[in-house]
Amino acid sequence: MLFTQTFIPTLREVPADAVIASHRLMFRSGMLRKLANGLFAYLPLGLRSFRKVEAIVREEMNGIRGLEIKPSVVVPGELWKESGRWDTMGDAMLRVQNRLGGDFVVSPTAEEAVTSLVRDALASYRQLPLTLYQINTKYRDEIRPRYGLMRGREFTMKDAYSYHADEASLDETYRAMGLAYRRIFKRCGLSVIPVRADSGAMGGSDSEEFMVESTIGDNTLILCRTCDYAANVEKAACKAEAAPSQAAALPALEPIHTPSVTTIAQLCDFLKTDARSFIKTLIYRARNVALDLSGAPGSAGLAKRASSPEASPVYPEAFFAVAIRGDLEVNEVKLAAVLKASEVSLAADEEVVRLTAAPRGFAGPVGLTSLPLVADLSLSALQEGITGALQADTHYVHVVYGRDFVPWLSADLRTVVSGDRCALCGGELYEKKGNELGHIFKLGYKYTRSMQVSYLDESGQSHIPLMGTYGIGIDRTLASVIEEHHDEEGIIWPMAVAPYQVIIIPITYAGPVKALADTLAADLEQDRIEVLLDDRNERPGVKFKDADLLGIPYRVVVGEKNLNRDVPVVEVKRRGDAIMRLLEVSKAKAELSRLVYRELAG
Amino acid sequence: MLFTQTFIPTLREVPADAVIASHRLMFRSGMLRKLANGLFAYLPLGLRSFRKVEAIVREEMNGIRGLEIKPSVVVPGELWKESGRWDTMGDAMLRVQNRLGGDFVVSPTAEEAVTSLVRDALASYRQLPLTLYQINTKYRDEIRPRYGLMRGREFTMKDAYSYHADEASLDETYRAMGLAYRRIFKRCGLSVIPVRADSGAMGGSDSEEFMVESTIGDNTLILCRTCDYAANVEKAACKAEAAPSQAAALPALEPIHTPSVTTIAQLCDFLKTDARSFIKTLIYRARNVALDLSGAPGSAGLAKRASSPEASPVYPEAFFAVAIRGDLEVNEVKLAAVLKASEVSLAADEEVVRLTAAPRGFAGPVGLTSLPLVADLSLSALQEGITGALQADTHYVHVVYGRDFVPWLSADLRTVVSGDRCALCGGELYEKKGNELGHIFKLGYKYTRSMQVSYLDESGQSHIPLMGTYGIGIDRTLASVIEEHHDEEGIIWPMAVAPYQVIIIPITYAGPVKALADTLAADLEQDRIEVLLDDRNERPGVKFKDADLLGIPYRVVVGEKNLNRDVPVVEVKRRGDAIMRLLEVSKAKAELSRLVYRELAG
Repeated sequence: MLFTQTFIPTLREVPADAVIASHRLMFRSGMLRKLANGLFAYLPLGLRSFRKVEAIVREEMNGIRGLEIKPSVVVPGELWKESGRWDTMGDAMLRVQNRLGGDFVVSPTAEEAVTSLVRDALASYRQLPLTLYQINTKYRDEIRPRYGLMRGREFTMKDAYSYHADEASLDETYRAMGLAYRRIFKRCGLSVIPVRADSGAMGGSDSEEFMVESTIGDNTLILCRTCDYAANVEKAACKAEAAPSQAAALPALEPIHTPSVTTIAQLCDFLKTDARSFIKTLIYRARNVALDLSGAPGSAGLAKRASSPEASPVYPEAFFAVAIRGDLEVNEVKLAAVLKASEVSLAADEEVVRLTAAPRGFAGPVGLTSLPLVADLSLSALQEGITGALQADTHYVHVVYGRDFVPWLSADLRTVVSGDRCALCGGELYEKKGNELGHIFKLGYKYTRSMQVSYLDESGQSHIPLMGTYGIGIDRTLASVIEEHHDEEGIIWPMAVAPYQVIIIPITYAGPVKALADTLAADLEQDRIEVLLDDRNERPGVKFKDADLLGIPYRVVVGEKNLNRDVPVVEVKRRGDAIMRLLEVSKAKAELSRLVYRELAG
Repeated sequence: MLFTQTFIPTLREVPADAVIASHRLMFRSGMLRKLANGLFAYLPLGLRSFRKVEAIVREEMNGIRGLEIKPSVVVPGELWKESGRWDTMGDAMLRVQNRLGGDFVVSPTAEEAVTSLVRDALASYRQLPLTLYQINTKYRDEIRPRYGLMRGREFTMKDAYSYHADEASLDETYRAMGLAYRRIFKRCGLSVIPVRADSGAMGGSDSEEFMVESTIGDNTLILCRTCDYAANVEKAACKAEAAPSQAAALPALEPIHTPSVTTIAQLCDFLKTDARSFIKTLIYRARNVALDLSGAPGSAGLAKRASSPEASPVYPEAFFAVAIRGDLEVNEVKLAAVLKASEVSLAADEEVVRLTAAPRGFAGPVGLTSLPLVADLSLSALQEGITGALQADTHYVHVVYGRDFVPWLSADLRTVVSGDRCALCGGELYEKKGNELGHIFKLGYKYTRSMQVSYLDESGQSHIPLMGTYGIGIDRTLASVIEEHHDEEGIIWPMAVAPYQVIIIPITYAGPVKALADTLAADLEQDRIEVLLDDRNERPGVKFKDADLLGIPYRVVVGEKNLNRDVPVVEVKRRGDAIMRLLEVSKAKAELSRLVYRELAG
């Protein structure tokens, strides 16, 4: 391809809003342009790399028996009402009314659409397992789109959905997906960190996120310095502190006067101790609680209700006391999971006062009968503690877990932080910021049950299939490749996703230099190597600068001087390498071909 | 590919709303499913053929130096406001407000989006000509989506946009597009009729539509039995009737009493003559008239106004008398073009009465001074005629064009019908119904001017580029292939767009039959032939019926009896042919490969 016959509008200036390298470099190299905030257009150069990522994903999906389909991007709102997500997806889902007043959605994901297709077509166990996928336009109405493709409004996602007769089959596909995802990112030249993730709004259990490290990442990852433990902080666990040795005799519970001391910091000052000595008690409000509360303290009047005839009954609202060691934070994602609640949030002050019958700041587990008490595991490792006494200006000291209070439920609720110890190996945990490129989930029956999918088994009995869902952001993956592979001058493409594999720069595009450049380009293209020939009438310095910016792996410079040597040569340089080699013209094609294919083979 | 490892849910029943063959057969063969009215999902089989059409289109676009880009599907409403189409596109354009109140459009076409990209990047004449295209999702909010993919709401379009420094360059790309379109349809196995078309809401001049004949077609085509003239009826011309010989002396104009005779049919009865003798005069209301009316009858008070600072000034509303031979119909698309109006419609009765100062039914050109008179060319060929006399119960006879009235403007306004004579060769014209698959236009400066695109020429002077636009409906093209290639039993795929090229049917998938079927499939796939192996545990009759329905070009039946012959054979049949051939097993692969590649080569 001649440079002048394509459309690569490179820029010297950096767009004002481009904070990260991929955003900056995709604009400067003429790969991408903006149509509006969070809405982009791939230009020819960018689309070439995009298609390569897409092709890698497609190959790997086909390789594990994924079947590609193509549902519409605009889908009927009815499907979302059936699954219940019409109400729960929030404002990030772009809803449209058409001219006839029908509700539609510009798809943010396609569990409903694909499940409705499967529902119509699934009859027999013989059709299972079934994995369908699409690589298609998605839309999420980000309030603050930024970082270029990293957080756009419209994007392309590979989303796959699998259906199974049993857990073993779902496990098998889930595992195969996990391996395929690892191959995809490796082929794109990306270092990803697979982490256990909370499945958030998607529902279900068992999921894995594929993260890339990024200073502007949306996610906090918890990693172990010793072993390969990695988890999203929303789900990360750590090693519990050792249980206290059985001390002969602990002093008895004792109230102390703590006038106007309502925070742990004040209490530390007051008692000259540190936060680790305290039992912090927080009152939480939870919505749509599926956990069974019958017999729980203060829950006598609560009744489960179903929001619709199909939905499972839940407690629409319930309150809980959550106790945790004073220096730790409650992880609300973990808490919601333990309570099987759709949402948890700290109760308002007046509710705290009403429920604990004490001023704010004096809640505590001892003698608490108005609420179910949920204790973090950290408390069982506490020899003794200090806590609020459920009355004004009073705390207890020498509080002993199991002796002075017994929680209704005990669970891992803490937010893991740097310095905690790894649950697997005891090593030191640390934090990183990351961006999610892919996510695989086991959904179980969430959609297949609410959307009434069924199949007949060998004996003619009807069953609901299990389901999994598996996404990769194509644009984010592409942008992440640039994040990982660039320098001050521009992009340094891994061969597999480079828009072209070789760039030929004739010093001046005329005479024998032009002739050789043309021949070499044609010869390489004969070998199916993708060549960009910079035929522009520009100074060599400009061409070199653009070549560095574009980041095409091999740069070949054809100059008159080098052609006039006894043995004519061209200059070859791998983008990102310091060393420039001279190749004999007669061997240039074969050697370049070898270099390119070697890198493609990985 | 094994049948049991893909997802081809064939149907015995025909969907109730499937009127045409492609709709029926795509559903029955498991290529397509419906998500809602006008919204579909391609299943794996359908997507394979879809991708082949897409690939053919892409190849041909790249072949004429088209550069592929990928703008977002959801685009900012601001771009449509800039071009002025925010107001003129009507309700078929799907508009969305996002959570922040911004206006967005789910693209029905992309003149604005692509022109905005070019505006940002175009600097020099050296970048021209430039042809950018996308193959991407489009949406039109059809009120009555039907006929499956033929009239859906969401569809995939290849839309290309070209930018030029001069007319010659635009001509060249326009011609290259026309040829590329012909190759695309030929490669898909389609018989298209290229017709001159009115450019409708797209603006500009010089355009060509690519039609396929269809009984449910949206368009009426006018074709010549003798030469290759073909036009959309909206734009079709015909040979004007010969001018009258100069008769020595025509009788003078004479009023006659025609009590309560207000229609041409009544007048024919009353005067015992036929409609060809009459001059029919209709009063039209036109909106946004760009034609200069200064000095036209009855237009003294009219003033041109611009709807916005950028828009050209037009007469917001004007009325015209349109005269035509009594047996002919006024073509309103032609009339709007002649008047340079955005819209024309018959005036309401009270306006007719007000403007002609006569009861309805007595309008006529003689003595008409309150309105500009626009005459169809048919009138100048009339020796003499009968017409309304602008007063109640009175007509004129012996009305002579040029003697008794002189039109303000004379133009071709008639709707051509079967039986008219070809303007090119005088042959007989006839009508066909057709569906549009593609459309190419010269847009001129319409968008580049309103969106203020410019480039610098060699001497540094700024110019506005010319523009062309070129679309093909990918889904419609695919559906049209089935319309043209099917029989009672199912689809008969042309090789180039067949989802698979060979289907292998083992009578029972076991033992040596299975072994041979597997080997043959593997061998053919080695030759890059796409094979579907029907490994289902179904009766041969079911498999044969499905094979006919799916329409895969070559069917190979492997049966035990044929394998047990002295020289083992398989049965080979081309879908659509009556004849079944026996091929020796040892030669089957080579022969099938030869047959497939011969057809692929065309």
